[in-house]
Parts: sequence; C-alpha cells; structure tokens
Amino acid sequence: MSPFAVSPADIEAAASQLADQIVRTPTVRSVRLSTLIGADVFLKLENLQATASFKARGALIKLLSLGPEVKATGVIAMSAGNHAQGVAYHAQRLGIPATIVMPLGTPTTKIQATRGYGAAVALYGETLDESKEYVDKLISQKNLTLIHPYDDPAIIAGQGTAALELLADQPDLEVLVVPIGGGGLIAGSAIAATAKRPGIEVLGVEAQMFPSMHQALAGLPIKAGGPTLAEGIAVKSPGKLTLPVVRDLVADIALVGEVALERAVAHCLEAEKLVVEGAGAAGVAALLADPARFKGRRVGIMICGGNIDSRLLSAILMRTLIRDGRLGRLRIEINDRPGALAAVTKIIAEHEGNIVEVAHQRLLADIPAKLTELEVLVETRDPAHLAELVGAMEAAGYPVTQPVAIRL
Amino acid sequence: MSPFAVSPADIEAAASQLADQIVRTPTVRSVRLSTLIGADVFLKLENLQATASFKARGALIKLLSLGPEVKATGVIAMSAGNHAQGVAYHAQRLGIPATIVMPLGTPTTKIQATRGYGAAVALYGETLDESKEYVDKLISQKNLTLIHPYDDPAIIAGQGTAALELLADQPDLEVLVVPIGGGGLIAGSAIAATAKRPGIEVLGVEAQMFPSMHQALAGLPIKAGGPTLAEGIAVKSPGKLTLPVVRDLVADIALVGEVALERAVAHCLEAEKLVVEGAGAAGVAALLADPARFKGRRVGIMICGGNIDSRLLSAILMRTLIRDGRLGRLRIEINDRPGALAAVTKIIAEHEGNIVEVAHQRLLADIPAKLTELEVLVETRDPAHLAELVGAMEAAGYPVTQPVAIRL
Repeated sequence: MSPFAVSPADIEAAASQLADQIVRTPTVRSVRLSTLIGADVFLKLENLQATASFKARGALIKLLSLGPEVKATGVIAMSAGNHAQGVAYHAQRLGIPATIVMPLGTPTTKIQATRGYGAAVALYGETLDESKEYVDKLISQKNLTLIHPYDDPAIIAGQGTAALELLADQPDLEVLVVPIGGGGLIAGSAIAATAKRPGIEVLGVEAQMFPSMHQALAGLPIKAGGPTLAEGIAVKSPGKLTLPVVRDLVADIALVGEVALERAVAHCLEAEKLVVEGAGAAGVAALLADPARFKGRRVGIMICGGNIDSRLLSAILMRTLIRDGRLGRLRIEINDRPGALAAVTKIIAEHEGNIVEVAHQRLLADIPAKLTELEVLVETRDPAHLAELVGAMEAAGYPVTQPVAIRL
Repeated sequence: MSPFAVSPADIEAAASQLADQIVRTPTVRSVRLSTLIGADVFLKLENLQATASFKARGALIKLLSLGPEVKATGVIAMSAGNHAQGVAYHAQRLGIPATIVMPLGTPTTKIQATRGYGAAVALYGETLDESKEYVDKLISQKNLTLIHPYDDPAIIAGQGTAALELLADQPDLEVLVVPIGGGGLIAGSAIAATAKRPGIEVLGVEAQMFPSMHQALAGLPIKAGGPTLAEGIAVKSPGKLTLPVVRDLVADIALVGEVALERAVAHCLEAEKLVVEGAGAAGVAALLADPARFKGRRVGIMICGGNIDSRLLSAILMRTLIRDGRLGRLRIEINDRPGALAAVTKIIAEHEGNIVEVAHQRLLADIPAKLTELEVLVETRDPAHLAELVGAMEAAGYPVTQPVAIRL
C-alpha cells in the first residue's frame, strides 16, 4: 500500500494509457551544462510536449478517468496558463466540452491558444477568488466537472509519467530536479522515481517570490507574490495531496531568484537551442546558481514547459546581451559641429565595435544648440571590450555615460 | 560497389565510430506541423548536436581518419560558421592543433565560439578567394591538413549518420527533407536513406538566393549571392563528390525565399519551441511553402543547425508579431491640448489593445506646437483586431498612419 494518494503502479498504469496520445518527449545530454558544472546533465524536454508543457499528461489521464455522462456534460478548469491548454487540447481530442475560466487581464496570446484548442474561454474575476466563485457558480449551474491543476490523484499520476520516461532514457540518474508550483509534477515524479530507483535524490525548485511549498513544509505562514518570470509555478497554495509526498520524498527545495531565472531562460535559448519558459527553466536556474551541489553527479532536469511570450523572449535576448557586455548603450556628448559624429563613429570602428543603432538628439531645441547628445547601441565582444571602447572615446575628449538599462 | 565516393557501409562504419563522441540527437513528432499539413511530420534535431549543428559529425569522422603525424602537425579549415565550430570542438577533444581561417568582418560571436573550442582563429581576406589563398599559404608553410567542409568522403560519411539515426527512430518515413549547402549532408543522407529504405523520396532544399546545386544539375551557369538568412547553406560551388549523389538519389530541390525562411525560423521558435538557424529551418520552410506536396505522408525533416545570433533572433520574433498583426506600430495625429493622449489611450483600452510603447513627438519644436504626433506600439490579437482599433481611432477624429515596418 502506498502511503500517498498515488502509488507507483498508478503511474505505470497512466504511462500505458498515455502511449500514442502525447509526444514521447526526448531526454538529451547538455554538453554545455555538463562541461560548465563538471557533471553529467540530462534535460527531459517537456517543452516539446503537445501544448508545450507536461500539463498535457495529467489532463489526459484525468479526462480518460471520467464516466460517459460526465464526459458528455463537460469539464471546467481555472487557469490562464499551461493547465488550460492541456485540458483544452485533450478535451477536444476526446470530444469533451471544455470551459476554461481565466482572470480578467489574461494576455490575449494565452486566450487565443486555448480557444485554438476548441475550449470555451470565459474571462472573469479581478482576483483569483472572484474567478473561483464564478467557476463554482458554473459548476452548480451546468453540472460541469472541475479539472484541478494539481490536487487530484489522476493528475499527479499523469505528471509522474514524465519521470518514468526520463528514467527509462537515463536509468542511472543520481539527482532529479523538478520545479514546484502546486506540486503535481514533483509529487508524481518523486513517487515514480524513488520507486524505480531507490536512493535517487529528488530536488524541488521554487521561485523566490513564490516559496509556498517551502514555507508550508517549514510551518511558516505563506508569503508569496510578485511578478515572477516563472508564472507557471507562481502558486500560493500547495496541494493537500502533493505536500505530504514532497515532505517525505523530496530531499530539499532550492529557491531561485529572478535574475537566475532570466539567465536560465537565456542559457536555454543560446546554449541549448531550446525555447523554455521561466518555470521550465527553474531547474537550470538551480543548477547554475549552485553548481557545487551537482558536481560529479548524473543529474536529470525537468524542462517542464516552453510557453513564453514572443515579446518577453525578445526582451530577454536583448537584456542578456546588455548584461553580458555584448551590447552597450552609450550616451556621448559631442559638440554640434561638422565632423563630430564621424570622429566618434571612427573611434568605435577602430576598436572593432559594431554600431547597431544611432540616435542623435539636441538637448535644447529653442536656442542654437552648442551641445548634442549621441546615443549609440554598440555590439562588443565582452565587458572588457566595451570598457576599452568607452576609454578610447573619453581619451579623445568625448564624455560617455552608460544609462543603466538592466537594474536587476 | 557503390557508384559514389561513399558507400552505405562507410556510413554505418562512421556511425559506430561516432558513438559516445557526439550527442545522439532525438527525433520528435511535430504536433503542429502534422496538424497544419495533414501529415506525420518528424524533426531530427541536429540543432541539439554538440556545437549546435550536424557539422560535428563529419568533422569527427575526418579527424579520426588522420594518421598520427598529420594529427600532431595539425589541421586547418576555412569557415565562418558551423564547420569551424565542428572542427574546433573535436580537434580540441582529440588533442589536434586546429587553425580556422575566417574572412574579415566575421561576427565576433562566431569568432568567440570557435576560439572557445580552443582553435587558433586567423581573420584574413576581404573575399573568399583571398581567404583561400591564405589557407593555401598556411598549408604549404606549416604542412597543415585541410578539412574540407563537404567535398570529402569522410565528411560525407559522417554527415550521413544523421539520416541513419533518423531512420532508426522512424523507419517508415516516406519523404526525407534535407537542406543543401555544398551537399555533404544531403549526399550522406541520401546514400544512407535509400540503402536503408529503398523508395524513400529524398528532397533537397536550397535558398532562392543560393540555388547553386539546382543550377549545376540543370546545366545552368551558377548565379548565387545575397544576404540570405540561411547563411549556413549559402554556398556557390556544389561539391564534386556530392553533385553526382544528388543527381542520382535526390528527387527534387525546392527553392525557398527569404520570407519563407524567416517564417520557418519563427515557426520553430513559437510552435516547436526550438532555436533553429535559417539554414536549419529550410526544410520547415519548404514544408510550409508547399504543404500539398507532403499531405498524408510520413515526412522527416533535418533540422540541421541552431546557431543564430541573439539580436537576429530577437528581431525575427518582433517582425513576426508585426507581420501577423499581433503587434502594430501606429502614428496618430493629435491636437496638443490636455486630454488628447488620455482620449486616444482610452479608445485603445476599450478595444482591448495592449499598449507596449508610447512616443510623444512634437513635429515643430521652435514654435508653439499645434500638432503632436503620437507613436504607439500596440499588441493586438490579429490583423482584424488591429484594423478595428485603427477604425475606432479614425472614427473619433484621430487620423492614423501605419509606418511600413516590414517590407518583405
């Protein structure tokens, strides 16, 4: 008998139910992370799952578990994120009517994606509590069945299949790193992994802004909130079914800050060639933040989702270039006389800086201007190269200021 | 006896040599492309290969084939791209000194990446011919051995192992789509695939700007050039060893334009969650450009590389949003009096547009301004939504112009 709501056998059963209805996502060795950490690092690519997250697993298992009448009447879920898409995708495939309630202000891309899978999307509630009330009303009015995002044995069993596949690909893992939101993925993964490979260390990861499972386990009041990049794991209330699993089977929970999350998303893009959302990159963030913990070990990381807004992705790419000194925004004071712009750009060219953008701005427009400000976005090799460029301009009599572009 | 410089057995032998020295890249089913085309579409993810391209395969096989004296003296390659990284990476692993000659003006990121693998990078030559002369000089001076990027049996055999793995993962493929630069990847893949699965259709893809293999096969003079996004397959001279293979074993060559390439890169990012360079996305571009050709079939696509500049990637993300009507840049004329900005932003809010950036600009700065121009970057659901927004503003007396942001 399993001490938890879900047994290893339940997860094995879920795995056989899933076959051919989801993507059998691959596990790849990361050459870069392995070299960087001095470890053997494997990534389980649930960002390549249908609907681009592991949520499609649990949603399918739950939907398959429903009786014919429940299926005919329909299901409801409350989510602005990956759970919404997972439920909508499989409900459409199985011919089950699905209603998804999203809070007001949900980004249109997420609404569109969910509607694209055929679900009826209702926007309701300024707060989560208001949305919940509306869901309850729809449930009692229309007799719909709620698909909870994590606190349900079928959901937990479904999510656990990701760990089974990872261990089938890499049976000798010593550490398994799994992000925690409500705890569905880590609970299922921990049950499956510790049964399959006793002694494996399961490590959870939460965003510093949402350390709710960590706080609940420590008996602390839950203080969570803030605009984290990892909105996929920004959950305030850990599951009642998932918490005891994490308490008993998870060795530790790492808390990762926003800079670490952003750097992890950028690492996945630049080095791993993978589009990973903030929550999906939380495991990589934990690895990069504390490499000593993983050194010399065989580490599996759940890359749990890839749904990130294109504008945000674009901004992260540019911010990373600026952070790494590969792109610099310089304000240069020049006298407003012929040749000054040419002189400055010549200095930049001589030092092999690549000018990406130029803006020429007159400070005082209502008098004949004596001073002009030039703003240059310049591509450089690294911070030392950028500093060399600034030094050369100042030596030539052109004072430079660098507006602080990234405060984090 | 194989009629070509490389036999299927050579490729099988290369595959056993590669084991554990490269990444066994996965093949994944693309749910989106399969649904979009009405086909079964599988992607072979060579963007997840070491050095982020298939070039690591051929480079390794060639380096392993060298005698001990040649290895001790060192190798040389001419490349600003993936071949440079493939050679540098394995040369370092095998302890072989490597010199890479890159043309002047090579982006610093590519120089850095290659130096990062321990190679000596020499920047030389305004043109390819000048670089070649310099390579020849180094070869005769230092007795170095040239690693050709494609016209070498060991290289062709190495690249062909990618197709072997793809067919091991998906034995029932009916079509195999492979980008063509000099022809090393497609020659090896075609030899391996047609031996393993007689009757498979091998389809090549070239950029419209560089249709050199297509022209060579048609007996046309080679006219190639231009700033293609697919610089990885921007080759003017098809290989002498690869051309006969393509002539005999490749059914057809699709030529893809720049818009198709850019859309394919964007599709890979947004829908497949993969970072793919222009050349790497050429197969997806061919699929999206001519879906009828692939309908109902089991299609394998070589996603051959993922090395794309972060700034370019960021620009493609934003351009795609603008192209798809999910982001609009609007210039709005407003009277310069209190409340006008509030009125315009209220209209946008009422129609559920999300303002991303605002710039307020006075047209004439030296007189009290009567007219002000407001430039707004606004997020919308689709082109119809953007048009609705523009209509509402014009109806309220605010003329709108949309600067043409993307001319392609």
